[in-house]
Amino acid sequence: MNEIPIEFWFEFASTYSYVGIERLPTFSAPFVLRPFLLGPVFAAQGLSDSPFNVYPVKGRYMRRDMERLCAEAEIPFRWPSVFPRGSLLATRIAIAHDSEPWLLDFCRRVYRANFAEDRAIDRAEVIQEIAEELHLPFAALRASAERPETKQALREQTARASELGIFGAPTLRVGDELFWGSDRMDHALRFWTRQGAMPARG
Amino acid sequence: MNEIPIEFWFEFASTYSYVGIERLPTFSAPFVLRPFLLGPVFAAQGLSDSPFNVYPVKGRYMRRDMERLCAEAEIPFRWPSVFPRGSLLATRIAIAHDSEPWLLDFCRRVYRANFAEDRAIDRAEVIQEIAEELHLPFAALRASAERPETKQALREQTARASELGIFGAPTLRVGDELFWGSDRMDHALRFWTRQGAMPARG
Repeated sequence: MNEIPIEFWFEFASTYSYVGIERLPTFSAPFVLRPFLLGPVFAAQGLSDSPFNVYPVKGRYMRRDMERLCAEAEIPFRWPSVFPRGSLLATRIAIAHDSEPWLLDFCRRVYRANFAEDRAIDRAEVIQEIAEELHLPFAALRASAERPETKQALREQTARASELGIFGAPTLRVGDELFWGSDRMDHALRFWTRQGAMPARG
Repeated sequence: MNEIPIEFWFEFASTYSYVGIERLPTFSAPFVLRPFLLGPVFAAQGLSDSPFNVYPVKGRYMRRDMERLCAEAEIPFRWPSVFPRGSLLATRIAIAHDSEPWLLDFCRRVYRANFAEDRAIDRAEVIQEIAEELHLPFAALRASAERPETKQALREQTARASELGIFGAPTLRVGDELFWGSDRMDHALRFWTRQGAMPARG
């Protein structure tokens, strides 16, 4: 039995990460959450904004694609009035607590706030409301997010994303293989299941 | 029974169009082939080259993703020594004969030449070899490709792609809905099957 977990790299502003994380509770492989920030990853590619804003025709398509995907999967979705939305506090909380059993629930609530309820997840009050819904101690979470080592850990994880060749989110990592997009989750799972049976890198 | 065909918009230089077209023979919906050129479509987005060249980290990922997808689907694949490869003659032949029963076979052979055999599909000799393998009269095909109305038809089809909101290939079109990428073919099929049951545009 393969026990190496699949890494799920995500960012709270990413629409397809929302679709991806909604599938994780039914995922048939162990996984670990790898929060990071897309902004510096895009900047490393020479992009000053989300590709969906840099290329509006792609952005319009993505919005419709999200509507259809979420309708099919019965995931609530409403286009947020701000895109992409800053998520520094939520991301720092996530990385400071990346082994906690409540983290997946916390992340899903943050995504729903952003993409189903159009709430300003860049505001501490909204993150506080989410924490309270989950009976998590917001003051302690906020303090952990503000620690220098947390800030540094997020900077390092984001730099690591670029080093690994990650350029968007969600990205699933299985060994040295990357699978980009919520539509590659099944592929990543199949790869995880039969690791070693894939073709050599060309 | 829904009889409106799904439009398959493709370009011969597009890797994922190759994956897509390889699936078309088993596609459970009627389809029509819509050849166009990505170059002008990318230019309309401000891109001077394939996004996979403009963003090399994405290009490296795509190459590996293609290897894995093709291995899984048992589609022969070898990275072409030139990417993207010009395909003006083949595309003009395709648009001049877009209702011919042999067109799908012709297109599949052109894709295999480019992405499995690393042959220079931008050279007339290679297109001639492909035509001869299929017992098609190359001289007549070439003459049809050179007609001013064929050239104009391709310009118009390419402009139409941009007008429709197409920004990459393959794109499947079902009514007014676009589905981008070989990984959206199942989604397009489901949409085609239950047309009218999808959410309103947001």
